[in-house]
Amino acid sequence: MDTSRRFKKGNESEVLIQTETNREVLKNAPVENIVTAAHRVAGRSVEPCLFGQGGTCCRNCNMGPCQIIDGVEQMIGVCGADASTVAARNFARIVAGGAASHMDHARGVVMAFLATAKGEAPYEIKDGIKLRQVAMSIGIDVAEKSKEDLAIEVGEKLMAEFGQQEGGLSFVKRAPKPRQELWKKLGIGPRGVDREITEIMHRTHMGVDQHYENLLFQAARTALADGWGASMIATELSDVMFGTPVPIRSRVDIGVLKEDEVNVTVHGHEPILAEALGMAARDPEILEECKKVGAKGINLAGVCCTGNEILMRKGFPIAGSFIQQEVVLATGAVEAMVVDVQCIMQNVSRVAEQFHTELITTSDKAKIPGATHISFDEHRALDIAKEILKRAIKKFPERGKHFVPVRSMDVVAGFSHETINYMLGGRFRASYKPLNDNIINGRIRGVAAIVGCDNYRVTEEMHVEIAKELIANDVLVLVTGCAATSIGRTGLLSPEALDQAGPGLREVLEAVGCPPVLHMGSCVDNSRILIAATEMVRTGGLGEDIYQLPAVGAAPQWMSEKAVAIGQYFVSSGVDVVFGPTFPITGSKVVSDYCFNKMKDVYGGSWHLAKKPSEFVNIMVDTINQARKDLGIDKKKERVLFDMAMRRELGSPAIPDAGCGGHA
Amino acid sequence: MDTSRRFKKGNESEVLIQTETNREVLKNAPVENIVTAAHRVAGRSVEPCLFGQGGTCCRNCNMGPCQIIDGVEQMIGVCGADASTVAARNFARIVAGGAASHMDHARGVVMAFLATAKGEAPYEIKDGIKLRQVAMSIGIDVAEKSKEDLAIEVGEKLMAEFGQQEGGLSFVKRAPKPRQELWKKLGIGPRGVDREITEIMHRTHMGVDQHYENLLFQAARTALADGWGASMIATELSDVMFGTPVPIRSRVDIGVLKEDEVNVTVHGHEPILAEALGMAARDPEILEECKKVGAKGINLAGVCCTGNEILMRKGFPIAGSFIQQEVVLATGAVEAMVVDVQCIMQNVSRVAEQFHTELITTSDKAKIPGATHISFDEHRALDIAKEILKRAIKKFPERGKHFVPVRSMDVVAGFSHETINYMLGGRFRASYKPLNDNIINGRIRGVAAIVGCDNYRVTEEMHVEIAKELIANDVLVLVTGCAATSIGRTGLLSPEALDQAGPGLREVLEAVGCPPVLHMGSCVDNSRILIAATEMVRTGGLGEDIYQLPAVGAAPQWMSEKAVAIGQYFVSSGVDVVFGPTFPITGSKVVSDYCFNKMKDVYGGSWHLAKKPSEFVNIMVDTINQARKDLGIDKKKERVLFDMAMRRELGSPAIPDAGCGGHA
Repeated sequence: MDTSRRFKKGNESEVLIQTETNREVLKNAPVENIVTAAHRVAGRSVEPCLFGQGGTCCRNCNMGPCQIIDGVEQMIGVCGADASTVAARNFARIVAGGAASHMDHARGVVMAFLATAKGEAPYEIKDGIKLRQVAMSIGIDVAEKSKEDLAIEVGEKLMAEFGQQEGGLSFVKRAPKPRQELWKKLGIGPRGVDREITEIMHRTHMGVDQHYENLLFQAARTALADGWGASMIATELSDVMFGTPVPIRSRVDIGVLKEDEVNVTVHGHEPILAEALGMAARDPEILEECKKVGAKGINLAGVCCTGNEILMRKGFPIAGSFIQQEVVLATGAVEAMVVDVQCIMQNVSRVAEQFHTELITTSDKAKIPGATHISFDEHRALDIAKEILKRAIKKFPERGKHFVPVRSMDVVAGFSHETINYMLGGRFRASYKPLNDNIINGRIRGVAAIVGCDNYRVTEEMHVEIAKELIANDVLVLVTGCAATSIGRTGLLSPEALDQAGPGLREVLEAVGCPPVLHMGSCVDNSRILIAATEMVRTGGLGEDIYQLPAVGAAPQWMSEKAVAIGQYFVSSGVDVVFGPTFPITGSKVVSDYCFNKMKDVYGGSWHLAKKPSEFVNIMVDTINQARKDLGIDKKKERVLFDMAMRRELGSPAIPDAGCGGHA
Repeated sequence: MDTSRRFKKGNESEVLIQTETNREVLKNAPVENIVTAAHRVAGRSVEPCLFGQGGTCCRNCNMGPCQIIDGVEQMIGVCGADASTVAARNFARIVAGGAASHMDHARGVVMAFLATAKGEAPYEIKDGIKLRQVAMSIGIDVAEKSKEDLAIEVGEKLMAEFGQQEGGLSFVKRAPKPRQELWKKLGIGPRGVDREITEIMHRTHMGVDQHYENLLFQAARTALADGWGASMIATELSDVMFGTPVPIRSRVDIGVLKEDEVNVTVHGHEPILAEALGMAARDPEILEECKKVGAKGINLAGVCCTGNEILMRKGFPIAGSFIQQEVVLATGAVEAMVVDVQCIMQNVSRVAEQFHTELITTSDKAKIPGATHISFDEHRALDIAKEILKRAIKKFPERGKHFVPVRSMDVVAGFSHETINYMLGGRFRASYKPLNDNIINGRIRGVAAIVGCDNYRVTEEMHVEIAKELIANDVLVLVTGCAATSIGRTGLLSPEALDQAGPGLREVLEAVGCPPVLHMGSCVDNSRILIAATEMVRTGGLGEDIYQLPAVGAAPQWMSEKAVAIGQYFVSSGVDVVFGPTFPITGSKVVSDYCFNKMKDVYGGSWHLAKKPSEFVNIMVDTINQARKDLGIDKKKERVLFDMAMRRELGSPAIPDAGCGGHA
């Protein structure tokens, strides 16, 4: 199962590099000795500090740093903080870092949304139907309002929730009632967006909250303010503004770079800039400029989650996931890498400098030494996008020796929760009922989300191995973020991969032409999974609350603090979540027991830790099986071709112009 | 100058304990082998991790922890982050932790203030004059409004600034105009309170902001949202609600505990709970309960900054500073330690358990294993305070063997910026002019603030040594927080200490009967120093902006993240600030150069690092001398008894009922 290969160059120490394409490019790169994160991992003489990794290094005051050894009396903090306090405190700050990132992302989306509604930005309110749905879901009267007025009202109401001091968040009310009541009982319903971050930073200050459970409740509250607050706001308003994703074909991996076009990679997370670049790339003025330098056009390709945003809405290809960001540049074939925020490694600047590539930072929140900074402002989005593309075009004649691999893979992306509704439920009776029915009758064993980052410290293709095993076991797999990209690289995001699925899952999905692994978007879009889960509960037959669903999540290569915030909002929503290969509280036995066991009693779902793909799969399938047992649906039911029959009655198996054939 | 003594007990390793009283109590404590933080410092076999201490350990993603060695190519982060990025990122998160603490503190004050104004809490709007001043300063029309209505309006306006997304903070407009313009030019004017924390947490996430200067600008913005925002709001509204401090006599040190009364220590930071305990302690019902157990009453004594809050407003004694919190309990004479938030060491729980002492946590944000939790709510403040005191009274008969030291010291506290105005300016012509004049004529060399924590890792009485040297050099010293308490323990907060002052300073202060070191409150009250500095600028003769004043700040034993936030808002306001014995960015040469040198060009004031008291004093006096030189007031002026003459003309040298004689 270990797919890692050893990569040697001259006398360098052995470097383990995940992903065949990365190995190929680095072997053939036109510049010698490109140093990537994989080389830095291999080059470090010591393993990562275990205190830091296990969450028991405390740096929260200047009497430290104190390195705590659980159970050793003398090795508590100078202040007396024990391993449980320190691990919980560090964990809470990780959640704060992750949640804050989504909150700022969402704030940017709302600001652009309001500018758009007011006609001050070059975007449009694309999805009027979803706008009305969102408006109604947050208690806004939609009658007789223009699209623009309604959008302003929605934007302003959601904007106010960022600074809100008391009360609750609108989208939290979408969760199943018993879940809302649980949060209320536990006192962890978020009051506002930003306030929860401030409170976490206060409570983790030296000498404030020193009870791990109390700290972890605030971490949960903050995570909920992310998942059911900021992230959901970002996803919903991005959909309204840029279009709700529908299945669309495209390609993934470094081979999407083109020999005869100006290659512009857009890296980071926010859709605002990337959408503008997408618009500008088709502008006649820009195409004319391309022609002048002998290029056939602009090849806009995504990296990391910006890639997922424009892949699922516009069908732009993805050049690479997080662990490919340096390697994409190492081809020497990229004219510009345009970045906004999050997960942009400082080293891309050093790699870009070895080529003609221009690194362009665009967010005032994120500068990098060596990069050109062009401050992005949604009000002037198109002009700025054109300015950026013109710089890239100018670089095209400077492209020297380069190496573009052949490798890239077909994918179908764009499975918003609305799409799943239509695709699996039929066009005229859009519903999650057929999905639920197929779970109840056992054709589909359950649903698993594989989310989160990829990570240079991991050399196995964890996502892929886990996904393969799950679909073979009739588990429908949902993916987001860099997990989606790495799974996409191996072909599992294409309907052809159905031959790797178990017979039940294949039978259901073949009928609608769906791949066995559904690409649901960027990491902010994990909120779509919350809505889908809620919809499954609402549809009936699978319990009264999310924790009863035969569903499970995993982030097998998590790297970003956002992954932990996401994991915590899933756990606090009742979903069991498996992380690995490490988890940042294992230095405390008490907190480990709380996260891995007791949270199950509190939320109905808990954290789990696994290292190898097989361990992940075992936990995930066991969790699903246990849920089936608890629901009393674990007995083999007689198979009735219920959904096929229904579908035939209803006509078309999917939306004709939005089926998995896509429009790309 | 080294005042540390070695403390041995049995075969234990050598333990260095700061403060004579601590040594005395621990030697005579009724329970053997009480383990304090000093013992834990001595007991650790290794020194604190240098990566952590110098700011170059990065734990912001799960590819780490990465320990960075500045200048060593292979020792950058896996992502490529170098020492400057990592140090700046860690520094920014320290500022976020500190600022967030003050923000939550301030939020609590505003909530209690609003409840009070609405008649829903047992407090009152005590200082109607200050209420009107505050209202006018933030642009509220005061005409024909009842005190309560005005208070509601002020409270609501300031409350809204916590969640504000755009615009600026009201109190920022109090700063000198050139300073406001500088902040605007640099783009670091805070837009709201909480938003800046969220943004710092986002920008320090992996792969976001990777330019140290840009990161440090956001740290500065957040610090300004603390000093000129949250902290100032907390101080001003606490004054309006509980009374603006005027000079008041009291006592400081563990000897304030009483043999024949129920000793209740109140520890933490917020004034709300402590004020209620103060009210309840005089309640006839409570006094009756005391009598029943043979106690003469309740002896309410402060620890840490709660102590400073009730000392300066009510004259309650302070039992101890931060480094005395365990030792106060080690007397065995404390019936209850009541705590709210910040700087409460988890170990107080273990020490309390060795005695009859009940540890009572009161904030839902701060629980401690082993403590009794009584949730405080300002609406029921008095009832809850009584409930707490009754529990303490019940413990009185259980007091066993105990040891209360004789040691305690006279102090005069309560030097709000209004008081300084009156005291040094005269009653009928309240003004900073005489202070400015005495600085210009050279009697007073300049002003120095010694603020911040005390720290178990430091064994010299740094604050005291520095203060003595400064006053001997005619520098007027302002103190807050635990620095104030530790200086108070040695008698420097009493007018009798004037004989240790230089001739110029003594001459000026003798005339008004002031001590040479002015106690200005808790650590949140450093905002008073900002206002005083602004007032000095406004008064004239000392330049157009704060950076020109012959003024300097120091936190020689800083421990809390709050100290760094405070330091940064002073630096960004133009004040040179000296920290020690360590500073959390020294692992990066570039960031060190920026903080210690380049910030001077940016803000007019910068950070400085010192270890020994003499180093602190040298930097501080040099800074003041340089400012005098730049102002052209460094030449010895002929002494004119200007202020004395003026004062004689004006009559009384100080407010009769609020002079340094105090009312205690």
